[in-house]
Amino acid sequence: MDGDGASSTGATPSEEMNGTGNLMDFLDEPFPDVSTYEDFHTIDWLREKSRDTDRHRKITIKSKESYWELIKSLLDAWSGWVVMLLIGMLTGTLAGVIDLAVDWMTDLKEGVCLSAFYYSREQCCWTSNETTFDDRDKCPQWQKWAELMTGHSEGAGAYVLNYFLYVLWALLFSFLAVSLVRVFAPYACGSGIPEIKTILSGFIIRGYLGKWTLLIKTVTLVLAVSSGLSLGKEGPLVHVACCCGNLFCSLFSKYSKNEGKRREVLSAAAAAGVSVAFGAPIGGVLFSLEEVSYYFPLKTLWRSFFAALVAAFTLRAINPFGNSRLVLFYVEYHTPWYMAELVPFILLGVFGGLWGTLFIRGNIAWCRRRKTTLLGKYPVLEVIVITGITAVLAFPNPYTRRSTSELISELFNDCGALESSQLCDYVNNPNMSRPVDDIPDRPAGPGVYSALWQLALALIFKIVITIFTFGMKIPSGLFIPSMAVGAIAGRIVGIAVEQMAYHHHDWIIFKNWCRPGADCVTPGLYAMVGAAACLGGVTRMTVSLVVIMFELTGGLEYIVPLMAAAVTSKWVADAFGKEGIYESHIQLNGYPYLDVRDEFTHRTLATDVMRPRRSEPPLAVLTQDSTTVEDVETLIKDTDYNGFPVVVSRESERLIGFVQRRELTVAIKTARQKQDGVVSSSVVYFTEDNPQVAEACDPQPLKLRRILNLSPFTVTDHTPMETVVDIFRKLGLRQCLVTRSGRLLGIITKKDVLRHMAQMMNQDPESIMFN
Amino acid sequence: MDGDGASSTGATPSEEMNGTGNLMDFLDEPFPDVSTYEDFHTIDWLREKSRDTDRHRKITIKSKESYWELIKSLLDAWSGWVVMLLIGMLTGTLAGVIDLAVDWMTDLKEGVCLSAFYYSREQCCWTSNETTFDDRDKCPQWQKWAELMTGHSEGAGAYVLNYFLYVLWALLFSFLAVSLVRVFAPYACGSGIPEIKTILSGFIIRGYLGKWTLLIKTVTLVLAVSSGLSLGKEGPLVHVACCCGNLFCSLFSKYSKNEGKRREVLSAAAAAGVSVAFGAPIGGVLFSLEEVSYYFPLKTLWRSFFAALVAAFTLRAINPFGNSRLVLFYVEYHTPWYMAELVPFILLGVFGGLWGTLFIRGNIAWCRRRKTTLLGKYPVLEVIVITGITAVLAFPNPYTRRSTSELISELFNDCGALESSQLCDYVNNPNMSRPVDDIPDRPAGPGVYSALWQLALALIFKIVITIFTFGMKIPSGLFIPSMAVGAIAGRIVGIAVEQMAYHHHDWIIFKNWCRPGADCVTPGLYAMVGAAACLGGVTRMTVSLVVIMFELTGGLEYIVPLMAAAVTSKWVADAFGKEGIYESHIQLNGYPYLDVRDEFTHRTLATDVMRPRRSEPPLAVLTQDSTTVEDVETLIKDTDYNGFPVVVSRESERLIGFVQRRELTVAIKTARQKQDGVVSSSVVYFTEDNPQVAEACDPQPLKLRRILNLSPFTVTDHTPMETVVDIFRKLGLRQCLVTRSGRLLGIITKKDVLRHMAQMMNQDPESIMFN
Repeated sequence: MDGDGASSTGATPSEEMNGTGNLMDFLDEPFPDVSTYEDFHTIDWLREKSRDTDRHRKITIKSKESYWELIKSLLDAWSGWVVMLLIGMLTGTLAGVIDLAVDWMTDLKEGVCLSAFYYSREQCCWTSNETTFDDRDKCPQWQKWAELMTGHSEGAGAYVLNYFLYVLWALLFSFLAVSLVRVFAPYACGSGIPEIKTILSGFIIRGYLGKWTLLIKTVTLVLAVSSGLSLGKEGPLVHVACCCGNLFCSLFSKYSKNEGKRREVLSAAAAAGVSVAFGAPIGGVLFSLEEVSYYFPLKTLWRSFFAALVAAFTLRAINPFGNSRLVLFYVEYHTPWYMAELVPFILLGVFGGLWGTLFIRGNIAWCRRRKTTLLGKYPVLEVIVITGITAVLAFPNPYTRRSTSELISELFNDCGALESSQLCDYVNNPNMSRPVDDIPDRPAGPGVYSALWQLALALIFKIVITIFTFGMKIPSGLFIPSMAVGAIAGRIVGIAVEQMAYHHHDWIIFKNWCRPGADCVTPGLYAMVGAAACLGGVTRMTVSLVVIMFELTGGLEYIVPLMAAAVTSKWVADAFGKEGIYESHIQLNGYPYLDVRDEFTHRTLATDVMRPRRSEPPLAVLTQDSTTVEDVETLIKDTDYNGFPVVVSRESERLIGFVQRRELTVAIKTARQKQDGVVSSSVVYFTEDNPQVAEACDPQPLKLRRILNLSPFTVTDHTPMETVVDIFRKLGLRQCLVTRSGRLLGIITKKDVLRHMAQMMNQDPESIMFN
Repeated sequence: MDGDGASSTGATPSEEMNGTGNLMDFLDEPFPDVSTYEDFHTIDWLREKSRDTDRHRKITIKSKESYWELIKSLLDAWSGWVVMLLIGMLTGTLAGVIDLAVDWMTDLKEGVCLSAFYYSREQCCWTSNETTFDDRDKCPQWQKWAELMTGHSEGAGAYVLNYFLYVLWALLFSFLAVSLVRVFAPYACGSGIPEIKTILSGFIIRGYLGKWTLLIKTVTLVLAVSSGLSLGKEGPLVHVACCCGNLFCSLFSKYSKNEGKRREVLSAAAAAGVSVAFGAPIGGVLFSLEEVSYYFPLKTLWRSFFAALVAAFTLRAINPFGNSRLVLFYVEYHTPWYMAELVPFILLGVFGGLWGTLFIRGNIAWCRRRKTTLLGKYPVLEVIVITGITAVLAFPNPYTRRSTSELISELFNDCGALESSQLCDYVNNPNMSRPVDDIPDRPAGPGVYSALWQLALALIFKIVITIFTFGMKIPSGLFIPSMAVGAIAGRIVGIAVEQMAYHHHDWIIFKNWCRPGADCVTPGLYAMVGAAACLGGVTRMTVSLVVIMFELTGGLEYIVPLMAAAVTSKWVADAFGKEGIYESHIQLNGYPYLDVRDEFTHRTLATDVMRPRRSEPPLAVLTQDSTTVEDVETLIKDTDYNGFPVVVSRESERLIGFVQRRELTVAIKTARQKQDGVVSSSVVYFTEDNPQVAEACDPQPLKLRRILNLSPFTVTDHTPMETVVDIFRKLGLRQCLVTRSGRLLGIITKKDVLRHMAQMMNQDPESIMFN
């Protein structure tokens, strides 16, 4: 307990070899790459944190020495904010560029702008001079391919030619996308959120957030979205933002050399990604907090918010939507909602939950098939085939031909009196004076009915194709397709309710709130509620979902409908399976992700989980003063454990510490090279006192206490697994030793915990159904 | 490791005595009040969590037995939502009632409504018929006291009489408030947030959230605010909401019997409190997350959001402000802000930071004086004196006479063309056509200049009096006074900038953005930024502050100014001291609060902190099979520890478990009464095997393994305190045992950790300055 004197005050054991003077220099690079982790390994959060504290302490001590060091320490304290600023700016810029490029290339499938080929249709028609009301929708500068090539814009020939070119462009874009991904950056595929969740929970996937991934993901995202596939850019944008975060981490050793601190930056970057995806900074921060991040201290919350805001304002400065709106789908409704409408809203919630379940099950089944059958061998072909099917089926239907975000935007919008959209083809009362807002409910015209049919077909198409699209080897987000499914269903329900209310306003359910000539039902609101429900069903987002939707509408007015739908959808979907799409993909890929939300409620004990099991050979341990260098080397060669417990002796089995495999390897190698007299028969000592060399002929002992972790984490064999899981989660451990009355019994690693949890869940899944 | 068989699979040791059949019944009430904690003690989060899991497991098993049990289990799963709904509704209702009552009683100080005495001035004048423009501000139904008593509404006599009655009413209200608090509920005083933070971190303060506190705090809050003292209702509303939360917890044994689950509900209730205080549900949730809560799982986030929304909508249904707005200070600005304005905004941030520092230091010094000198003996007198001073000084100045929230509301508002307020007395250009919005900058009239003087005086008055007011024995929040200080300062700066821009629009700094005849500067925005800065300086809120302000304005437009001011204010204030007002009060009161945000960066080890210290007697331990009942009783009598470690023997000191003092006391008492043959010389056994009674004459042994916690938390003596602090924080431990190679060395309790942290901070405070 005492008697350790000065040497025991070092926080990490590796310092003890050094004097206090250069104590810190030693820490930066104890041994080449000992402080780093191997690919596909788990980081030790506690260790990272303690390394950061040491670094910080060193800077604080140094800062008193000179003004220059003080300035350096201030710069270090500010570097977090600088990184956030840079991330925000780059993410915002990339999002803006992606938006502009997608707009242009999506339109390129249908035609081209004659005045400047790099203009999208909208930009092209801004500059056109036809500003009278009738010519509003015409725009001579913009020509469809058939018109440009044959001179005819109407007729079967033109239609077929346009159709053919639409499919061709789509195939070209998607082929380019999948080829780039295959050749340059295999990690650029998918949405990236499952992997980012895993990385943030403390896993190392080298290159996943690298520069190549950033570049290729940005380019292929544009191609994939433009190809008209049923996918969105929101998830990939989070990945892109995290790549930016990782890029800027490398500027500051504070972040680049510490995997824990790096993950704080990545959490903030994820917030910036969602912020630009929807123009919803608060929603972005909450998404990062709720859905993506693992370790989210309050300091990160504040910085995330900053990064999200910078990103949002950078995007607005670029102004890709040309309306100086921050949000992707800006809507303004003019009528309140009524209590009775909660019934259809909740039904939409049920639909959203069912869609979520269907999508997750279908998509996981398909992805599993892709992993296990020949299908996975031909990713390029798969993308080409799916793109072909999508394009061929999408072109005839005006609601699937256009880009999905345009579709959602139209579905969300309330019909004004002057709206030219087919969805707004209501029969107007000729006597009615026409205010722009607040138009009473009107009977639907033929346009609305044909729109309903087309929407119904689009719904089925979207539902089926999205299941097969998500998970292909191209960047693909599922926010937009999910929202599209919900928005279509919602709009259909909305129009149905509206027409019922118009034609049957004497029914008891409408009587109280819907007088004839009043504007009672807003079908756009139903679309929005449906979108929220479907997105919630797939991702199981809750608060962040409602907040994102709230930021889109900008009013608290519609929070209750959104919330009702989101709650219902989550409950319905949870009844069929607790996991959202991201967790399902994490499980499918077998990432070691310890979900914070799963509650472990089984009655197992640490003794049931620890290795070695009864039938297995005993635990590989080192003794503090009786193992030889050769023994250690044999142990290292024969096993692949990350580290070894050190005990007093094999008889007493009393634990004194834990030594990392990598540090051990490096230490022995270094000693063999540099330290005279260290041979295979040298005894390795982990004790505090200097070993007494009994006889002169004995080989020089090797003292390795400095690499011994004297504070390994231990639990007793009787500790409930529930507590062990909690400890692993909250402290971010890699492993934990199991003892009884001070005797070492075994070890539990993060993977043991995950394996046990998976095992228990399959055994008796109903016990985790509630909550 | 093996050989334990079935008996070792029990999750908590207290179950082993029982068969699996009644295993659970036993858990609910193992011994009377053993599962509860004593007043002013710390709860054990891990234990609470494991008790809840057991309860949950029991319900799940039972639910398979019959439909009735299934329904019960479903009800149990839903009870959390029911509690949230009830909390939201009651909190919203109380907030509405408080608003209405405060409105009425504040106006009662000046006059009365003749048509109905229970109408506030605003309500009174709604019903009046004078609706022409000139009579807008007159209202014959509403009479000032002098007019009512003497018939004269003008003249020195009337002024003096009004003055006198104003002071008298104020004294009456505050006397009533302080008396009620003193007599019925001493815990109802103050803002309550420091105590709630402490309670949420796992401390027990009985009665702090009780029914009496709820009732008295609600009543006295109305009285205190109406008395015109410089205090607000926001903090106390959080306390009121938490009392509601605690009240509804008692309806469900899930929450009432589990201190951990109860705290989840209280976190959500705090969110509901802020939600109704400002009409900002998202801000409320973030406030609870950032400022108040300790353990905030994601499930709580979602429920908090629900409770906050229900509360906000209930409040809106009551509609106390008569404008169907949800928010307290609704503002709408018509002009954007310009980059150059960031300079005054940042200056306001500096002012806010300085104000925060001044307030915290002054208030803490005064509160310390109150605690240590005679002052604290006369709380009623103190309140009376402060109220007297406040009322006498406040009446002559129109900006301090009215209620603080009205003042803030006026300061936030932009001047319309028709505004009759003195602050809007600008010289209008007679040729100007008058649109309601977007009025160009105008030169200030005499009203504005006199308003500036009055505001300056009000600013000084508010700054000084608030320091003395906060902490008196009446309910007192500091959001509103802080915001008032900032709003006054901001408005003054805003008007100054506006006039500068008007008169010197050729200066280089104005040239680029402020042409003559344009509306460049919005003084109301400056007031809002100032309010945010001052609130931030005092509370150190960050994200929640910006989000609350964002919800007030409802647009992302002004987030950048708010954020700039909030960041500056936090940095400036942090430079003078890391702690916000709540943490300072927690420290002043010596609550055992382990702040999540403080980073412990010292290089001490567990061995430096653990008890016993070197000079102290050895640790009080029990042995597993050689302590007699008498020994145990002596130990319990002689010490006041919460529990005792159990070791194999005094020689080996190998730890086998930990036993709670309360459980030990009860177990021995019960055994002495009910179990034959247990006498003082009986040996207490904690071993697994049945003790062998060597001779027949030996007294019957007492087997107590069932109360032995076989999984006590241990760390080694070499563990850095940084890690220990982290473990205490994240796992919510009460104590932790310190071992070396399996031998028990000492114990560290939460209070030891706190003491050590305080000690280290005083020793070398600069090492925690950054970050």
